[in-house]
Amino acid sequence: MKTRFWLIFLFAAFVLGALANSQSDRGAGLMKLENEFMKATVDHGSQGYMSYYADDAVEVPNGAAFLKGKTEIAKTMGFLDKPDNHLTWMPVGAGIAESGDLGYTYGTFEFRSEDKDGKPILNRGKYTTIWKKQKDGSWKVALDMGNAGQ
Amino acid sequence: MKTRFWLIFLFAAFVLGALANSQSDRGAGLMKLENEFMKATVDHGSQGYMSYYADDAVEVPNGAAFLKGKTEIAKTMGFLDKPDNHLTWMPVGAGIAESGDLGYTYGTFEFRSEDKDGKPILNRGKYTTIWKKQKDGSWKVALDMGNAGQ
Repeated sequence: MKTRFWLIFLFAAFVLGALANSQSDRGAGLMKLENEFMKATVDHGSQGYMSYYADDAVEVPNGAAFLKGKTEIAKTMGFLDKPDNHLTWMPVGAGIAESGDLGYTYGTFEFRSEDKDGKPILNRGKYTTIWKKQKDGSWKVALDMGNAGQ
Repeated sequence: MKTRFWLIFLFAAFVLGALANSQSDRGAGLMKLENEFMKATVDHGSQGYMSYYADDAVEVPNGAAFLKGKTEIAKTMGFLDKPDNHLTWMPVGAGIAESGDLGYTYGTFEFRSEDKDGKPILNRGKYTTIWKKQKDGSWKVALDMGNAGQ
């Protein structure tokens, strides 16, 4: 009976240890993922940006209603394809669940554009992004929200 | 050896089953928690509101900088104690990690107030709240963000 107890104990300890280890790896990973997300947007515009969204993602835009689903959200992201528009962001914090399947990042963004007379415009704001691990092991945006001011 | 295998298998199945069950319980629980959070705010103003915040919470206010820590956030919540001010909100969705220690809610809010001439003002907006389970088992706000429009 003692042997069985120790077998079960060691198995449980192994599972918990593996979970704890992968958790800290992935916590740092979300900040790194943000950089890849931004690079994809700089390189490929709205298509690069949307490639990081989950199919059932929710967008919470400032001054407008909730958008539900990747298809609806993609319709509003065409502005990322205009050569004069430049969206960049910088995460300042992140958190992750013990199970390593749900996490969040928050930070600041800058949106540089031009008005109709070609004069530069700079809008600065903040964001929160909720990340969910998908069935294929990739992380995707489950919810994204922005507001004004830094 | 076969007996040991089945013992370990049954133990693992039991642990996973218990986790999955508590996860769905808590998913519904976050929506219920939102109602208790709002009731505490209606009944006890800023003190009731802040009692749901974690010590290391982050506030992401629209039009202003990040606020870090419960003490800093509490300094900006005095408006909840004015009798003419009424903040109510309604969650429309929620998500939770498999480990049941991190979750989020999002929804709409209404802020009813009066201008200096006593004329009613109504501001409507949206919010996202990230919830983290504390060491004592209670859920607290880890991050809260608001923006404009519904």
